[in-house]
Amino acid sequence: MSGPATCGRVAVIGTGLIGGSFCLALRKRGLAQHIVGVARTEETRQTCLQRGLMDEATDDPAAAAEQADLVYLASPLPSYEAIFRIVGPVLGPDALFTDAGSVKAPVVAQAEALLPDPGQFVPGHPMAGSEESGAAHADADLFVGRPYFLTPGQHTASPLLERARALVQALGARPLVMAPEAHDEVVAAVSHVPHLVAAALVDLVASAGPSAADRQQAVGPGFLDTTRVASGPAGMWREIVAANRENVAALLAEVMQRLERVRGLIARGEWEQLEQWLSEAARWRRELNG
Amino acid sequence: MSGPATCGRVAVIGTGLIGGSFCLALRKRGLAQHIVGVARTEETRQTCLQRGLMDEATDDPAAAAEQADLVYLASPLPSYEAIFRIVGPVLGPDALFTDAGSVKAPVVAQAEALLPDPGQFVPGHPMAGSEESGAAHADADLFVGRPYFLTPGQHTASPLLERARALVQALGARPLVMAPEAHDEVVAAVSHVPHLVAAALVDLVASAGPSAADRQQAVGPGFLDTTRVASGPAGMWREIVAANRENVAALLAEVMQRLERVRGLIARGEWEQLEQWLSEAARWRRELNG
Repeated sequence: MSGPATCGRVAVIGTGLIGGSFCLALRKRGLAQHIVGVARTEETRQTCLQRGLMDEATDDPAAAAEQADLVYLASPLPSYEAIFRIVGPVLGPDALFTDAGSVKAPVVAQAEALLPDPGQFVPGHPMAGSEESGAAHADADLFVGRPYFLTPGQHTASPLLERARALVQALGARPLVMAPEAHDEVVAAVSHVPHLVAAALVDLVASAGPSAADRQQAVGPGFLDTTRVASGPAGMWREIVAANRENVAALLAEVMQRLERVRGLIARGEWEQLEQWLSEAARWRRELNG
Repeated sequence: MSGPATCGRVAVIGTGLIGGSFCLALRKRGLAQHIVGVARTEETRQTCLQRGLMDEATDDPAAAAEQADLVYLASPLPSYEAIFRIVGPVLGPDALFTDAGSVKAPVVAQAEALLPDPGQFVPGHPMAGSEESGAAHADADLFVGRPYFLTPGQHTASPLLERARALVQALGARPLVMAPEAHDEVVAAVSHVPHLVAAALVDLVASAGPSAADRQQAVGPGFLDTTRVASGPAGMWREIVAANRENVAALLAEVMQRLERVRGLIARGEWEQLEQWLSEAARWRRELNG
């Protein structure tokens, strides 16, 4: 094994959509020598082994991590504290420890409080989720072309950040390096608040009322696109919103201010201004492509 | 030509995405003998003829309509009054006159006020638009599997409604028959308000600010889906919102109430309730499929 992106022995803790896809992505590109997956249930471990995600599966994070050159943490945010306490003391001195959590400032604070050497931890976040979840939907190309945040804390060692960046590029993702606090504000805007807004639109259409059945029948391709994310796992989204509550609340208020302004334009019949606003939004959206 | 869905001579007034796709859909299924398209500009007429959308193209709605067995109106809503005044008097006694406008109660009122025989008019609305526009994006299967509203006014002749329903089915769409007022409330919920909300999310991400560039770079597949509709033609959406202003304003207020409730749950840390709400939205959204 050689090259900046090769990983040697890898421990993947949490084998859901992201963790499972990370395993497949490494294997497809020949970037790992040996992968151990950590999953709590025997059923998940069997699914992972049957799908060929990893060489070995266990329920013991310490055993998986102590021999690893790379530890990839992709379990739910509430599990982080326990994992940090278990993994920190067994981590080899040259190992890279990174994660895939959707919120970063609280994770960095936990790492700094709980890890013997917080410099080994390179916080990460691939913007590659979908409304699917679980190892059964793992995809070797899930990260291709997607943004992948790396959000070093003040202790993060520069050489490890560079190793993480090379790995992210080797997976075909676009590394975006920024401070944890900036990340959390950005993802509130591009992901967390849009999720809540999509859920509100589903709720609007689903609500009881004389035409609720008609509304469901009437749904066209636009509504399906707009609300697709809302079918994602509720428990995971609760954890994300709770972990990023200040940013989410502030940006939710910003969206509501925009909607209130639009409501005013409609009430006053200010159609020129409405068209101009829609036109600017259309222009921006077309620039994003996809 | 025979069968309930065959159309004989067809005039299609307005040859954008919907009108152009209607032409192609008829041709692909052998449902028309002869199609005349009505477009204002020579450039559009040439595009239509080059793409084989129709047999003949003109800028004269009266000439196109007077020989027609079916007149299909798919031009912008502000053009309707003039078209009704021109087409009404030349319409053959057995002709079916239908349209594809996104708002129906005001259109029915115009038809009843302006057409010599409002019984010939069967108001329609295919839920098949996209962020694309123009005859260049016409698609023979645009309507397949999509809802297609038929919203008879009190004068609409039943046999013509049945002809329209058979035609809609022959195009592969799912006919939904309801009153114009019910239609307008339903589409405000499933289309017009979601469009404004998607534009507000784009505006949030595009807004000036220290992290605006980061926000754009950070956009993942979820945000792209959620906001795809916002790239649609601003002028058309202005007309739709203006024509359906009461319903749009009322349902926009309903969405804002939901967002305000969510903001309260976050402020008070009521995570159980948040998860329950997200979970119900996810369940409803999964029932819609697609």
